[in-house]
Amino acid sequence: MAKVKKQPRPKAETPKGFRDYFGAEVTSRSEMLAKIAGVYHRYGFEALESSAVETVEALGKFLPDVDRPNEGVFAWQEADEGGNGDWLALRYDLTAPLARVYAQHRNDLPTPYRRFAMGPVWRNEKPGPGRFRQFYQCDADTVGAPSVAADAEICALLADVLEEVGLGGQYLIRVNNRKVLNGVLEAMGLEDDAQKDAVLRTIDKFDKVGESGVRELLGKGRLDASGAYIDGVGLSEAQAEPVIAFLTSKGETTEATLANLGAAVGASEIGAGGVAELREIADLLAAQGYEADRIVIDPSVVRGLGYYTGPVFEAELTFEITDEKGRPRQFGSVAGGGRYDDLVKRFTGQAVPATGVSIGVDRLLAALAASGKAEARAEGPVVVTVMEKARMAEYQAMVAELRQAGIRAEVYLGNPKNFGNQLKYADRRGSPAAVIAGSDEFEQGKIQIKDLILGARIAENATLEEWKERPSQFECPRSELVARVQDVLAGRGQ
Amino acid sequence: MAKVKKQPRPKAETPKGFRDYFGAEVTSRSEMLAKIAGVYHRYGFEALESSAVETVEALGKFLPDVDRPNEGVFAWQEADEGGNGDWLALRYDLTAPLARVYAQHRNDLPTPYRRFAMGPVWRNEKPGPGRFRQFYQCDADTVGAPSVAADAEICALLADVLEEVGLGGQYLIRVNNRKVLNGVLEAMGLEDDAQKDAVLRTIDKFDKVGESGVRELLGKGRLDASGAYIDGVGLSEAQAEPVIAFLTSKGETTEATLANLGAAVGASEIGAGGVAELREIADLLAAQGYEADRIVIDPSVVRGLGYYTGPVFEAELTFEITDEKGRPRQFGSVAGGGRYDDLVKRFTGQAVPATGVSIGVDRLLAALAASGKAEARAEGPVVVTVMEKARMAEYQAMVAELRQAGIRAEVYLGNPKNFGNQLKYADRRGSPAAVIAGSDEFEQGKIQIKDLILGARIAENATLEEWKERPSQFECPRSELVARVQDVLAGRGQ
Repeated sequence: MAKVKKQPRPKAETPKGFRDYFGAEVTSRSEMLAKIAGVYHRYGFEALESSAVETVEALGKFLPDVDRPNEGVFAWQEADEGGNGDWLALRYDLTAPLARVYAQHRNDLPTPYRRFAMGPVWRNEKPGPGRFRQFYQCDADTVGAPSVAADAEICALLADVLEEVGLGGQYLIRVNNRKVLNGVLEAMGLEDDAQKDAVLRTIDKFDKVGESGVRELLGKGRLDASGAYIDGVGLSEAQAEPVIAFLTSKGETTEATLANLGAAVGASEIGAGGVAELREIADLLAAQGYEADRIVIDPSVVRGLGYYTGPVFEAELTFEITDEKGRPRQFGSVAGGGRYDDLVKRFTGQAVPATGVSIGVDRLLAALAASGKAEARAEGPVVVTVMEKARMAEYQAMVAELRQAGIRAEVYLGNPKNFGNQLKYADRRGSPAAVIAGSDEFEQGKIQIKDLILGARIAENATLEEWKERPSQFECPRSELVARVQDVLAGRGQ
Repeated sequence: MAKVKKQPRPKAETPKGFRDYFGAEVTSRSEMLAKIAGVYHRYGFEALESSAVETVEALGKFLPDVDRPNEGVFAWQEADEGGNGDWLALRYDLTAPLARVYAQHRNDLPTPYRRFAMGPVWRNEKPGPGRFRQFYQCDADTVGAPSVAADAEICALLADVLEEVGLGGQYLIRVNNRKVLNGVLEAMGLEDDAQKDAVLRTIDKFDKVGESGVRELLGKGRLDASGAYIDGVGLSEAQAEPVIAFLTSKGETTEATLANLGAAVGASEIGAGGVAELREIADLLAAQGYEADRIVIDPSVVRGLGYYTGPVFEAELTFEITDEKGRPRQFGSVAGGGRYDDLVKRFTGQAVPATGVSIGVDRLLAALAASGKAEARAEGPVVVTVMEKARMAEYQAMVAELRQAGIRAEVYLGNPKNFGNQLKYADRRGSPAAVIAGSDEFEQGKIQIKDLILGARIAENATLEEWKERPSQFECPRSELVARVQDVLAGRGQ
């Protein structure tokens, strides 16, 4: 063996923008994903797990126009004698891989193809507070179904997911349609693509700058919060009016909203078609019991209007949280999606209709925590302490019994010399109970059980009387180990 | 918007050595992993999900001694103005990240730290048949527990996992100990490190070449199957004898094996210590009910002896399968592990005892399929067909009812014109039933239900009488939709 040069010690650090997830962070996410997968499955969607690595070519969006295409994605070139290896990259979402999978396997997949996918995606972006370069997505998409019945189904699916995870009565799914906006642009007589794009970009800011802000930006321009002057699109007030009418057309009822939209698109055929689609979606959903208190036509939803080609959806949570500055605000968006009919075309030349939704897993987990719906369980293991090292086999037999009864349990496997450390360990693990047996107990066929749940409660707020009455440690025969620990877990104490 | 140059169409292909997983492939894996996680949890292990991306520095093993350290791992350099960005890489296993996590967070983690992890890992290796560059691992490790009680616990855990997934009575966990081998080398009087390494490498081939092969390789050398001559270590027959004695010391009983090992290590103190450890492991396991028919001391287990520092374990499945050439052979190994006390030292300078096991997820899934234990369920959705496009809301209401009753169901969302295509789709999805309603049915408040399970059975092997007697399609009132579909799913047909 060749001598190894002495290396400096490596740093034990996650790369910048990455993090580790521990214990309940991992299990509550997987429990939530399992619930979502259950709903997706019930709707007839099939699981798909594509590889984390794709060719840069297949991912598209980030085609290598420079030697090193690592803007936005983590990419590398395969080793190859001639330096001509493929460029590979980590997927940045679950939609681009779906397009590749569908194009690759379309002859073997059913049409329509309903698929769901959940897993990490990676973005090579500057990390920020709470923004990580690896995060989970959880998508459901229907490929090959042109009818808006597919879009309506995605909305119903999303509502059922939010009900399933425990957010019933606390969400609103808002639906808009890119075709209506196209109709508005047509009604305005905008022909120049650059000007259309400018209007689209402006509409995208509606969430931030509101109606008056959009008016200014469509016209002469606007002084933004930082004091910088943002040039406007240069439309007259009359020209801008249909856009404003579109954005503010939400009425008291679905009928009223649809009437307002009909007016906004004027004589545009594509616009009228878009309004008819929204009406059909609302009708289909109403027939399944989803009324406007859960899924509503709302043209003020603009996120993604530039990307999607038909209906667009966004799920918002309606309860208030307190932001980092102590101000109340609505929790906001947890999922979004829509119809994108051109995605597969890149590969095959044929347009394939597709519609789907992506759930922001971390946002949804945060929402569950904020709404108090995240299960807060004391689920630490029962710790069997070690008083006599030579009796290890007997301690192990105790945990084996507990585990066989389905109770989470372990023997203390650190250095048993300092008994205090063993109880500190049990505390750190959130243990509900500690089992104690020394030579006296072994001789008498007994064990001690320390009720750590009760102990913690007593330590917090019990009177001296209560303390005396319900000692948090008690003795019992060895043979009653499982039964008495079950009592403690059930809160029945001694 | 700038004009985009016309690009050639991208290829819709997974990168070489990667693959996609569909439907049941995904769900049976996640069901198996959930079962394993349940056992790990019951044993007191905590979930850990580290990031898929690590610094090459932290991963170790593959330190960048060349500009492009992509041998074995997928690695890339972070973009950085000066070209001095960190080298990052995808993790190649779950143990190296554990070492990094433990070193990084050791002050916040309990000691001992029991953790489990499951997820994909990536290897930049030449792909081959059945060998992929992304695959799942599923590990449990205990860090900070020096006692062999921790090793025994890992063996018990592994046995319980194999029982839980349904392989009870079909596995054997074999345990060896690197310290015993060290004792043997000491007893042989081998002092030269190069010679020790040569002996270790030879022992590693015991699985392939057997006792006589190892004898030849320890001595003068050996003609291998390809006709090439492999140089031997050059030991005399007498010198080689303790190694052979070690490898073949498995006796009829654990006592006999331990006695044989005791003889093989002679006067070596470290060897005697290793034998004592094996005895303690056997005793601890016996106290919990794990006898030699499930976990056995077996010094012929050599895999990993070079890597581990103490006890080594390997789980084998004992049932026979037929290999690709039609010959019967044992299924073989599905999991392995052992004690590795130096892993964290790279980061901190302090040795931290650790022991653990890694389960080969894909091997275990293949084993479950081979043993017939994989659940083969017809779990396609009930398909509500579309006869009248204008009635879509009513069809959607039907699936909504079915889903609310917990039945997997969907409306056919493809082009409904060709009804035959709808039934072909149902067939392709493995649907248990199709629901059919045209204008006649709607007028009469009825539906037709096609029992596709029964239909398939009849098509296969029914007599004409049976066919007549139990038609696979029947009519019922619309109000009985859910109840009658439930009948079909329960195999009660009409």
